[in-house]
Amino acid sequence: MKLSRRDIFKNTGMMMFGSVIGGLAFSGQRASAVPGQHEGPPELPWPYKKLDPQGAGESGYYGFYKGACCYGAFEAIMSQLRREVGYPYTIMPSTMMVLGEGGMAGVLILCGALNGASSAIFLVKGGLERERREAAFILIRELFNWYEQSPLPDYRPKAPKFEIIRSVSRSPLCHVSVSTWCKTSKLKSFSNERSERCAWLTGAVAKKTVELLNASSEGTFKPMHRLSAGTRSCRSCHDQGSVLENTRGLMDCGGCHFPKRSKHPKI
Amino acid sequence: MKLSRRDIFKNTGMMMFGSVIGGLAFSGQRASAVPGQHEGPPELPWPYKKLDPQGAGESGYYGFYKGACCYGAFEAIMSQLRREVGYPYTIMPSTMMVLGEGGMAGVLILCGALNGASSAIFLVKGGLERERREAAFILIRELFNWYEQSPLPDYRPKAPKFEIIRSVSRSPLCHVSVSTWCKTSKLKSFSNERSERCAWLTGAVAKKTVELLNASSEGTFKPMHRLSAGTRSCRSCHDQGSVLENTRGLMDCGGCHFPKRSKHPKI
Repeated sequence: MKLSRRDIFKNTGMMMFGSVIGGLAFSGQRASAVPGQHEGPPELPWPYKKLDPQGAGESGYYGFYKGACCYGAFEAIMSQLRREVGYPYTIMPSTMMVLGEGGMAGVLILCGALNGASSAIFLVKGGLERERREAAFILIRELFNWYEQSPLPDYRPKAPKFEIIRSVSRSPLCHVSVSTWCKTSKLKSFSNERSERCAWLTGAVAKKTVELLNASSEGTFKPMHRLSAGTRSCRSCHDQGSVLENTRGLMDCGGCHFPKRSKHPKI
Repeated sequence: MKLSRRDIFKNTGMMMFGSVIGGLAFSGQRASAVPGQHEGPPELPWPYKKLDPQGAGESGYYGFYKGACCYGAFEAIMSQLRREVGYPYTIMPSTMMVLGEGGMAGVLILCGALNGASSAIFLVKGGLERERREAAFILIRELFNWYEQSPLPDYRPKAPKFEIIRSVSRSPLCHVSVSTWCKTSKLKSFSNERSERCAWLTGAVAKKTVELLNASSEGTFKPMHRLSAGTRSCRSCHDQGSVLENTRGLMDCGGCHFPKRSKHPKI
């Protein structure tokens, strides 16, 4: 949408009137009265324009070194949306996503790149209503299944600090993803190479997310990654309506359960 | 901050001038030109006023039935902050937090109540700089350790649908938290009682979070929950600078590793 100068003056006049009325209405409350800022954000989903996957990959890589994995993946998509769409993405505080660093405040639970990317997907596709939630969830679950099953990171930045070996996490857990990569690469979890691996991975997740959002906006999206055969077998006894019905999850069970060495090795 | 009517008219006039200039500057770009909405949100942390923990508990309970666990915990805190502080909480799209339902889009990884509550903590305490991140992370980690070690849910709403038994999750994973409660309560994972348990838990996490934020704002916060003795022992061989250095996590290792039955029972 491109507005003429006349439109802008007209809209601004309307906004001024609205701001004065809004400001007066709020002036008796404890809330700080900044006119025009009480309207609240528009309801989700927010508008989308087709984005550049390679650009998102590169931004994700550099974003990692600025605000870690979750911020990196989210901001890689937000920065393009602010440029291509503008408002309401301009009011979104991306810095909030720094919280997802190291699988959530360093706790190592949920891969931060998945966390940030899922948040971006939900802004573009989601909402409070069941139908809207599901429209976002189908993309998020495809992203999670791709992440569990693919040799990653599959995005190589233009100017990497190190070359990075790929591994298959079989899990969206930051802890499992990192430790599996450490085992495959024979490198340490606090090494500079491990940081670089997570920077590449942030790029890879941001790129994949843009590809999914582009396909969805074009109407060509189809889920390509099913739950693993092992997990589908587990669900026959543990999922809804089964004999046990004691979980509801969609993670790959094999990422954590029944590893080869079930007891701690002798120390 | 309370503004007089004269202040509001003066500020609105300034805003109109700024909006026109801003609007003209943006009129040649692809971004949609909505005057006054290009400024971006204020940097974190956002201002805080002492909130009501009981009110957050009750809001969290009802919020669960509106937008699930993550939205419920986040909005329980945001609704009070919008009322007590106003802007910039008024521009935050809480609906985004619906994505955390069922441990993230139903994948059952990170407890949604923890996810939503952590996001609220980060808005109030966090930022991009290392010092700011750590100020938020120390509260988030205390919340996670409390969640892992306490018999929960410890918030009972005023008008519950069912009475709910407590369990100790030993993990921030939605999957482990739910399955442990199913085992303790002998109830199913898709039952109405399990939903009610997660609604109570959303209230419990929202209440605890407000208590932590209040203590932090008063300068009386001290971490009360250490990592378990077992986890500290694990870290001596697996954490930074150790022999293996193959993880970085702060979850309770015993929540997943070395359960009593290490092999799947005979089917």
